[in-house]
Amino acid sequence: MSDLPVRVRIQEEGPREGFQYEKGAIPTRRKIELIDRLAQTGLDHIQIVSFVNPKLVPGMADAEDVVRGITPRPDVAYTALWLNDVGFKRALAVGSLAIEGSITLAASAAFLKRNQNRTLQEQLAAQHAIVRLYKQHGVAIGRGSIMAAFGCNFEGDIPIARVVDLVQQQRDIASEHGVTLQYILLADTMAWATPLAIKRMLGVLRAKFPAVEFALHLHDTRGMGIANAFAGLEMGVTRYDSSVAGLGGCPFAGHKGAAGNVCTEDLVFMCHEMGIETGIDLDALIDCAQLAEDIVGHSLPGSVMRGGNLQTLRNATKSA
Amino acid sequence: MSDLPVRVRIQEEGPREGFQYEKGAIPTRRKIELIDRLAQTGLDHIQIVSFVNPKLVPGMADAEDVVRGITPRPDVAYTALWLNDVGFKRALAVGSLAIEGSITLAASAAFLKRNQNRTLQEQLAAQHAIVRLYKQHGVAIGRGSIMAAFGCNFEGDIPIARVVDLVQQQRDIASEHGVTLQYILLADTMAWATPLAIKRMLGVLRAKFPAVEFALHLHDTRGMGIANAFAGLEMGVTRYDSSVAGLGGCPFAGHKGAAGNVCTEDLVFMCHEMGIETGIDLDALIDCAQLAEDIVGHSLPGSVMRGGNLQTLRNATKSA
Repeated sequence: MSDLPVRVRIQEEGPREGFQYEKGAIPTRRKIELIDRLAQTGLDHIQIVSFVNPKLVPGMADAEDVVRGITPRPDVAYTALWLNDVGFKRALAVGSLAIEGSITLAASAAFLKRNQNRTLQEQLAAQHAIVRLYKQHGVAIGRGSIMAAFGCNFEGDIPIARVVDLVQQQRDIASEHGVTLQYILLADTMAWATPLAIKRMLGVLRAKFPAVEFALHLHDTRGMGIANAFAGLEMGVTRYDSSVAGLGGCPFAGHKGAAGNVCTEDLVFMCHEMGIETGIDLDALIDCAQLAEDIVGHSLPGSVMRGGNLQTLRNATKSA
Repeated sequence: MSDLPVRVRIQEEGPREGFQYEKGAIPTRRKIELIDRLAQTGLDHIQIVSFVNPKLVPGMADAEDVVRGITPRPDVAYTALWLNDVGFKRALAVGSLAIEGSITLAASAAFLKRNQNRTLQEQLAAQHAIVRLYKQHGVAIGRGSIMAAFGCNFEGDIPIARVVDLVQQQRDIASEHGVTLQYILLADTMAWATPLAIKRMLGVLRAKFPAVEFALHLHDTRGMGIANAFAGLEMGVTRYDSSVAGLGGCPFAGHKGAAGNVCTEDLVFMCHEMGIETGIDLDALIDCAQLAEDIVGHSLPGSVMRGGNLQTLRNATKSA
């Protein structure tokens, strides 16, 4: 009936996506509390902070303190986001993080200008420069990322051909520097994708680049996140970014309301119910989602944390 | 790539689903205000009240006043729900409603007991009796409904074979009384479905009953509503129940949190973005969703009413 995978890999981004987005200061110890709890759920990849300008993103001014405060587990990769070499050097300096290099392009010039104040050409040049920097520091470069791959609030629809071109550019940058990308992440940064758009995009990309693995970063701003993830699963995509409780949203994307990533526990629930393994304990994750709501002090978009795990109901009806 | 239909028919259930579920009294005039606004969006089928025991569902005690208070449009069918002949006779007596008979069975005995205090056998007998009553009153019987078709909080998973059997029972009841059902509605009353379960169920039902049209009534309690609707679209399903802003939830289903139907404007958004016609003005519908929030006095689960219509952004980027 479809290409549903047997197992998916989920990269948790709630702490980074969420705490940079929330208004008002969240105590550092509470950020640490959530990260340490998430690390006990079976999640093996957690993006915990971003090293960005504290004047622009004050919620991340304590990034170093957060990294130093957690109790790291050896089976979990704790990662960080940065947008330039200043941020990268902060990430290196703090120690104990899994430093993962990436080549990041954007499908929308208008978004790139707002997000990083660069033109497309400046972004290309910056990627060559940062790859050189990564290599100097012995940092592996596993990921290509394409922001705004499905559409842009400031520029409109993104043609599939442009994304094909960007994938080729990323591969060219990588091969010029003797690097092999593990996968390419398509980010629906401003929530323009529909399940049909996901299928069409991945259909073309799989045909053009049969050897490349693709991953999805899906924002849920218009309620399509889980449906888009399902479409990705049907196209054989095995890597997803997500945020516990649906925390987060990009501070430069310019939209209102719930703008976070697709919700981790809702995604895990869907996978488990469809027989797809994640390696994650759903009940423990639901506890983390409720903790996240307690930390931010308002309700978050996740559904399963309220609707409940069906496996719990199944067990109850069997023992009744 | 799929069986996506060209056009879908959406039955709005927000006023009925929502106002019976909300705690606290909602003024009758505000219910009427929302219904009259919904009728201007292009929706042609709106379920506006239920005629049920006012002691059990006090939010529907004013059902007759709501029906008498609206300003009916000739191009809109205003419908009602009832669970027994007492309710049916109230619906008939009030006048001006589109009276649509249905044959309703449930896939879970435990849910049926809680929802209507009947056994499966009593429900079957009641359907024969109510079909006779409909025929006496010249009421057309177009729909078969199967509640809890995908799972039950009190009974667990529902085997597909049981639903096949219930579809056959409905067709037998219909043919015994010389009635032809227009379509059979599968209701995921307690939100157990996943997109894969929708595809499997409809795959079997389409094979067993190639001449039968199926419809979906999807609750969003565990965040799967839109993904389930997408799976339905891919299986060629052209009829959906939904609730503006995601209003509602069944008062007898026994769950917490956002338990309403799949959100109408999110469903319409997905359809339009995928090239599927609905006949509905999405901007007008978003206005109704915001009105619904104002009426209930708290935020509701819909996403597009906050994230915004992409067509509006497209128009803005083109004229900029």
